[in-house]
Amino acid sequence: MTIGTIHGVGLGPGAADLMSVRADRLVRGARHLAYFRKAGRPGHARRIVEGLLRPDVVEFPMEYPVTTEIAVTDPAYNDWLSGFYADCTRHLAILAGQGEDVVVLCEGDPFFYGSFMHLHARLRGIAPVAVVPGVTGMSGAWTASDLPITWGDDVLTIATATLPEEELIRRIRDTDALVVMKIGRHLPKLRRAVAAAGREDTAWLVEQAAMPGQRVTRLIEAEAVVPYFSILLIHGQGRRP
Amino acid sequence: MTIGTIHGVGLGPGAADLMSVRADRLVRGARHLAYFRKAGRPGHARRIVEGLLRPDVVEFPMEYPVTTEIAVTDPAYNDWLSGFYADCTRHLAILAGQGEDVVVLCEGDPFFYGSFMHLHARLRGIAPVAVVPGVTGMSGAWTASDLPITWGDDVLTIATATLPEEELIRRIRDTDALVVMKIGRHLPKLRRAVAAAGREDTAWLVEQAAMPGQRVTRLIEAEAVVPYFSILLIHGQGRRP
Ligand SMILES: C[S@@+](CC[C@H](N)C(=O)[O-])C[C@H]1O[C@@H](n2cnc3c(N)ncnc32)[C@H](O)[C@@H]1O
Ligand SMILES: C[S@@+](CC[C@H](N)C(=O)[O-])C[C@H]1O[C@@H](n2cnc3c(N)ncnc32)[C@H](O)[C@@H]1O
Repeated sequence: MTIGTIHGVGLGPGAADLMSVRADRLVRGARHLAYFRKAGRPGHARRIVEGLLRPDVVEFPMEYPVTTEIAVTDPAYNDWLSGFYADCTRHLAILAGQGEDVVVLCEGDPFFYGSFMHLHARLRGIAPVAVVPGVTGMSGAWTASDLPITWGDDVLTIATATLPEEELIRRIRDTDALVVMKIGRHLPKLRRAVAAAGREDTAWLVEQAAMPGQRVTRLIEAEAVVPYFSILLIHGQGRRP
Repeated sequence: MTIGTIHGVGLGPGAADLMSVRADRLVRGARHLAYFRKAGRPGHARRIVEGLLRPDVVEFPMEYPVTTEIAVTDPAYNDWLSGFYADCTRHLAILAGQGEDVVVLCEGDPFFYGSFMHLHARLRGIAPVAVVPGVTGMSGAWTASDLPITWGDDVLTIATATLPEEELIRRIRDTDALVVMKIGRHLPKLRRAVAAAGREDTAWLVEQAAMPGQRVTRLIEAEAVVPYFSILLIHGQGRRP
């Protein structure tokens, strides 16, 4: 019996027809399907593939706990998370050992701030892993904004809103184009940083790009609370003939 | 008669099955197909869709001249290019005016350093434009390298090798993860900049990601000449439980 392959499959930003032809084929053919989700939620990646799956698919939801009990900055949280990824890896390794291929659903592109990376790193030497790149959430976001992100020699900085405020200000000042990911509860800090860098007038907030709730707002007009899937954009203004 | 739509369709990094389901459907259904290419060449985007097209497709190759006569830094080159994009736009606008939809093929993602952006900007108010995001060349590159590009709070800087050497050095020093595009004849300068920034040991060169000639090399072992489709990567090493 040959060992099965674990496929980390990028689904793109949200709309099912923005996944690649290769991803679509793997998802439709999958006998074993794994995906991350928060406990008690349907799971965003799982929602994207609704209606595409084989009737006899075996699903393996990998559930993040409700994280209100341990703070994410607590070392105990890190230990817990590490154990969680090890458990998931073990399960996938067992399936692969039985000769089964597994499709692991990934939002956007698997190797760009993705959770699958934690399984990929642990599966090295244990089972073959094949990654299918996907359209990133940020590509979905600048497409939704209907403006190109980079021209000519533009420098594009991609940062997460989890960075300290001073660091955000410095990064926002020192770039042509900007993408900020992982906004969530950091929105007030991010707003202050964009204002301090003097770039409030050209900053856009894109919520749920390529999803039913897609919304594009100027940052200065945005609400105080944004959904998990939100990206801040400042478009480059580089050379254009 | 209703006016036709100009579709800017991202094809992804190279392999035909890495285009999105939406792109695949548009390409297969296209009656009018436009794409950029260098005069005398088949055109890279056109090559990706070989074998997928309708038998009665009408093709409109938009040909860049062989640019040995005018230097790209010469203002005359810029004028020429601007006129060229205006001509292409006029042709697309005429087709749209006749009620025809046109699919414009774009390598990678259309709004990320893409030539289509020059048509998009000129078509505003003339014909409806719909953009289909694609998997970027850089996603293809880091997937080929088999390593994630960003973890946790990593900052990713995307720059072009066309920047001055000092600016490249500064950017390479001041980032966790790095992507450098548009390498071509700037490779010697880029190599010096990576070395000066002290990051030669972790820099990778990915040539023709997701294409038949795909090649992943450590920068220090790379040849002196690289193909047009080449990307430099330094992977982030951020937080991972
Ligand atoms: C853990 S990262 C995963 C990124 C994903 N692998 C990708 O390629 O886009 C989650 C962050 O991605 C961003 N994101 C992903 N998809 C998005 C979408 N469709 N609309 C808005 N933001 C999105 C949000 O900033 C969110 O906080
Ligand atoms: C004019 S830009 C177009 C970028 C494209 N729109 C994208 O989304 O990747 C051309 C540059 O993209 C990079 N590139 C695009 N596709 C690539 C691939 N498959 N392999 C390596 N480099 C690629 C190269 O650095 C090249 O110089």
